[in-house]
Amino acid sequence: MLEKLFVIKIGGQIIDHETKLVAFLASFAAVKEKKILIHGGGKLATTLAEQMNIPQQMVEGRRITDEATLKVVTMVYAGYINKHIVALLQARHCDAMGFCGADGNIMLAHKRKKGSIDYGFAGDVDQVNADRLEQLLQTGVTPVIAPITHNGQGQLLNTNADTIAQEIAKACSRIYEVSLVYSFEKSGVLLDVNDETSVIPSIHPADYEQLKSEQKIFAGMIPKIDNAFSALDSGVKQVIIGKAEQLQQLISNKAGTTISHEKH
Amino acid sequence: MLEKLFVIKIGGQIIDHETKLVAFLASFAAVKEKKILIHGGGKLATTLAEQMNIPQQMVEGRRITDEATLKVVTMVYAGYINKHIVALLQARHCDAMGFCGADGNIMLAHKRKKGSIDYGFAGDVDQVNADRLEQLLQTGVTPVIAPITHNGQGQLLNTNADTIAQEIAKACSRIYEVSLVYSFEKSGVLLDVNDETSVIPSIHPADYEQLKSEQKIFAGMIPKIDNAFSALDSGVKQVIIGKAEQLQQLISNKAGTTISHEKH
Repeated sequence: MLEKLFVIKIGGQIIDHETKLVAFLASFAAVKEKKILIHGGGKLATTLAEQMNIPQQMVEGRRITDEATLKVVTMVYAGYINKHIVALLQARHCDAMGFCGADGNIMLAHKRKKGSIDYGFAGDVDQVNADRLEQLLQTGVTPVIAPITHNGQGQLLNTNADTIAQEIAKACSRIYEVSLVYSFEKSGVLLDVNDETSVIPSIHPADYEQLKSEQKIFAGMIPKIDNAFSALDSGVKQVIIGKAEQLQQLISNKAGTTISHEKH
Repeated sequence: MLEKLFVIKIGGQIIDHETKLVAFLASFAAVKEKKILIHGGGKLATTLAEQMNIPQQMVEGRRITDEATLKVVTMVYAGYINKHIVALLQARHCDAMGFCGADGNIMLAHKRKKGSIDYGFAGDVDQVNADRLEQLLQTGVTPVIAPITHNGQGQLLNTNADTIAQEIAKACSRIYEVSLVYSFEKSGVLLDVNDETSVIPSIHPADYEQLKSEQKIFAGMIPKIDNAFSALDSGVKQVIIGKAEQLQQLISNKAGTTISHEKH
């Protein structure tokens, strides 16, 4: 039987809220199993870009990463946020080490091809160095990963943190029994987007088709769930979606939505 | 006999100059022995602070680190510069990993006590985690270290990069035969500060007393040389000071100034 590994993504709204972040990190540090934290960016990058008079272009909710913006997100994600989180975890006796994809060649990506939209220095992940992550985990390190990758030729790239969490979870499934946890401000996958008590506790492929055909799932959640099933198909044991404040309950399947092939 | 380790500090003026930085990193990547790179900050932090309208206070050549400035230096040193260097080294097949002192608890420091001057969030190093650095070096990693430390209680601190290089060199001397290299824009310790050809090739304790008494050493170099002798007293094998462009010659004692107890 493979050892358990939790790959936990923490959403931007939690990062922007210092009290919530500190509380989340306390419960993250208390997770006894091996674990990897992936963090997004929050609003600080946008604020900094404004202060530096760098105009921010958003297309379909995604940031266009020109050269100046790449510098900003590298500073904010891989610099301030990453090191702030690492220092807070170290204070809680969690032996955290912060990385971007270039560090130890952990995540290799390529610059997204120009289609109808030129996303600039946006990176699509080609390869996760799971052996390097395992080497770190085996020495007691908890990797804390910022959503910046590199192309192996000296170029840093901006990559979506949800995607990074998924790619790391998939790659580590060769070595560990991986649970991928998306922790954010919502309580889970909701039947009614305006009702936080309408969490669907578990979703299996058969249920999902039915829920979709009955249009019971909020449209905005569908890409997330489709991604979760794709992760399962690549060997991830389960995907858990839920509230950051409930991390301990999430990892024991007592809160949030668990997406898996198995019944719990 | 202990294995050789080069602890190499690269000065801010090289970091500010992209072509020089790329050339330096190419020769750094080519160093066959185990190695650690420590980098300073350059002008980017000052430029960014100006763009963010954060007034910069300097006292006796040292930056006063208020909270806003700490955020800036964390972003610039541990974020942009560190990751830019790591990506460039990875492109040269040097398996670099970037760290600040909080990562893996590599450098523990305390906030400098207020004396006549309050330096703010400036950290004085208490402890270097040489075992962690050795663990990384043994797995083929080249650590790239930004001059940011932490106090173990969640607080990041700004620390002088020259000091960090010295403390790392001292701590690693328990495990390795350490050469500490300060590479910057000058050719070495000069007899005449205006004459780059007046490099003193080697300085031993006896020579140094004589050079000092004859006032042949530029006053600005004296603290650096005093620090070098203090490093030797803590087990560092030799301190080499010289031009970044000549790194390969520096590490083979064919350029720059070598400070040691031995004659070469």
